[in-house]
Amino acid sequence: MNREKYTLLTKWLGFYLTLCASVAVAQMPQRTPTPNDTLKSPKVLDDKRVVIQIYAPKATDVMVGGDFASGKPMPLTKNDQGVWSVTLGPLKPDYYTYTLSVDGVRTMDPKNPVIKQGISSLENVMAVPGPETAFEDNRAVPHGEVREVWYSSNTLGMMRRMHVYTPPGYEKGNTKYPVFYLLHGGGDDDSGWNSVGRAGFILDNLIAAGKAKPMIVVMPNGSMPMPATSGMPDMNMMNRMRDLFASELLKDVMPFAEKNYRILTNAENRAIAGLSMGGFQTLDVTLTRPELFNYVGVFSSGFFGASADEADTKYAKVLNDPNFNKGKKLFWVGIGKEDFVMESNKKTLSLLDKHNIKYQYKETEGGHTWINWRQYLNEYAPLLFR
Amino acid sequence: MNREKYTLLTKWLGFYLTLCASVAVAQMPQRTPTPNDTLKSPKVLDDKRVVIQIYAPKATDVMVGGDFASGKPMPLTKNDQGVWSVTLGPLKPDYYTYTLSVDGVRTMDPKNPVIKQGISSLENVMAVPGPETAFEDNRAVPHGEVREVWYSSNTLGMMRRMHVYTPPGYEKGNTKYPVFYLLHGGGDDDSGWNSVGRAGFILDNLIAAGKAKPMIVVMPNGSMPMPATSGMPDMNMMNRMRDLFASELLKDVMPFAEKNYRILTNAENRAIAGLSMGGFQTLDVTLTRPELFNYVGVFSSGFFGASADEADTKYAKVLNDPNFNKGKKLFWVGIGKEDFVMESNKKTLSLLDKHNIKYQYKETEGGHTWINWRQYLNEYAPLLFR
Repeated sequence: MNREKYTLLTKWLGFYLTLCASVAVAQMPQRTPTPNDTLKSPKVLDDKRVVIQIYAPKATDVMVGGDFASGKPMPLTKNDQGVWSVTLGPLKPDYYTYTLSVDGVRTMDPKNPVIKQGISSLENVMAVPGPETAFEDNRAVPHGEVREVWYSSNTLGMMRRMHVYTPPGYEKGNTKYPVFYLLHGGGDDDSGWNSVGRAGFILDNLIAAGKAKPMIVVMPNGSMPMPATSGMPDMNMMNRMRDLFASELLKDVMPFAEKNYRILTNAENRAIAGLSMGGFQTLDVTLTRPELFNYVGVFSSGFFGASADEADTKYAKVLNDPNFNKGKKLFWVGIGKEDFVMESNKKTLSLLDKHNIKYQYKETEGGHTWINWRQYLNEYAPLLFR
Repeated sequence: MNREKYTLLTKWLGFYLTLCASVAVAQMPQRTPTPNDTLKSPKVLDDKRVVIQIYAPKATDVMVGGDFASGKPMPLTKNDQGVWSVTLGPLKPDYYTYTLSVDGVRTMDPKNPVIKQGISSLENVMAVPGPETAFEDNRAVPHGEVREVWYSSNTLGMMRRMHVYTPPGYEKGNTKYPVFYLLHGGGDDDSGWNSVGRAGFILDNLIAAGKAKPMIVVMPNGSMPMPATSGMPDMNMMNRMRDLFASELLKDVMPFAEKNYRILTNAENRAIAGLSMGGFQTLDVTLTRPELFNYVGVFSSGFFGASADEADTKYAKVLNDPNFNKGKKLFWVGIGKEDFVMESNKKTLSLLDKHNIKYQYKETEGGHTWINWRQYLNEYAPLLFR
């Protein structure tokens, strides 16, 4: 299948049949052809370099930022046709996010409809193909379902959404499954792990290969709304958001999931993990209710800022519990060497060390990126429920 | 809940905790504050006018197009701070799509993360609230699930995705349900009816009010890939795509759905409807395999272009079948008075009239927009399986 031709043809058909859903585009005034009409971006070259291009003849300054090249924004250069371009890499095969800035205006690549949605902003996503991405690719293996599920949250007094992965065979069977609560980071919502995080595909591939046990993965929305207040948020507000999440998870998300899905409800069959803010939430829940989860994962996280100093006191009871390690079959911590939350991570590990809490620690290359979080999920999930 | 404050606080927390997933933004060089920092767009005023704004101090020409104001692009004007703005409306409460153009560059509103994804482009979505949208709002009623389901298509030789709506109570029950195959238009994919089409919420609300029977809604991907060819697509290729879709629906989508969900499999419990390209596909399937669906809906569609002239011959057998009307409990056709496919619609109705095929016809205000398609779904679904 020639993907470029497919796209072209699909576009052409939309036009020919006058079926284009985009009235805005369909009804733009007629104009002479421009280089934009045939422009392709991103363009992945055979040597894994990637060309990002945008037609912006009037612009004077175009940049691209993303989770390649250490995240440093890079300038594009303009040709005499008004097309700006930059060649990245070669990049290791993976899925990358990026955003353009055109004369200071944050701009989605008009030629790339693949995006990651956050709660307050968008980013483009591009794939650099190669054997390295097999673990996260959409392959011809049995697929589970990913469900968008709305429920009424008592804690928050509003309708809330979670994403739920059910493994292949769930729909036609009647057995119960272990459950894994998987938490996203700040700025994202419950769709993050399934879109840019590719959690469904990663689980499908692991289960198909016999590397992970079939499990249900519950992905709640960890971004807490806040009541209106005056002034700037302070530490009290942060604590309140942390506690709100714990309440939402324990009193709404888990009971709803256990009521509506065939879930095993003992600690041996319950795992939790989160990235960044979700890792902080995971630590909080684990050190408050240690009896709930026998498997704990903390990705690129730790107690942030002032919370690190308070943690020793706040969680004293659990930290000093001599039986804590017995109740954990796995306490997995992973972070990239260049991660900008490394200091919080280190402080948190010191705290765990001080209290003789055992954990499995992995330091990888790279920083605070989905590239690492997908890898961590791929390493963590096979260790669960063994 | 003060939504603006919520957004602000969430953003601030993302920053404070250094948890922002967007490395691109997080690592942009420090700079002095700009009006962009506190800009809000879209801003819905109390009188239902909507202000769309973008900070683009270097730009010389900014436009917005969308499914308001007859789809005509409108210019924004710049203030001395570099903020461009336009005030729309008052707009009738509904969900609208729009896209900005900044110096000719298609631009998603940087302040609005709510979007509609097509197969080749994005659009922003904004809500103008009011009692008129109650039928399509996310309300505190029991919600069904919307599932992303991947399957292996024999017809297309690739993994394909469908969205499946299961009604409230499906997960815990064991009864079988009638099934409604709901097709999107050109440029969209199987996610369209659930995102901008709000099909899940519309069905939830109808079912909660007792206005529609609980049903399963299968939303396949109707955008067909094409094998690589040389030259421009022609009529043969169009026919091939039409036939590919029919094959995919009948040999892959329907058998998969019937195998994996508790679906009643007789014609009395089977409905189909589609908008635009999906309406064309609905007509093709209905006039080829009339025994399959007792309920048929055609939204803003018809036989397009040359296909109208061929239809009388191609579908002669079914068009001339004296029992056709007996096999249809509902043949519903809806279109907006300003729809640019009105001529195809009229030609198609003439063809049906010529062959004494009975249908229920509704002409509404407006054009070829999701505003109409959500209304049509809300009118059509209650008529099914009666």
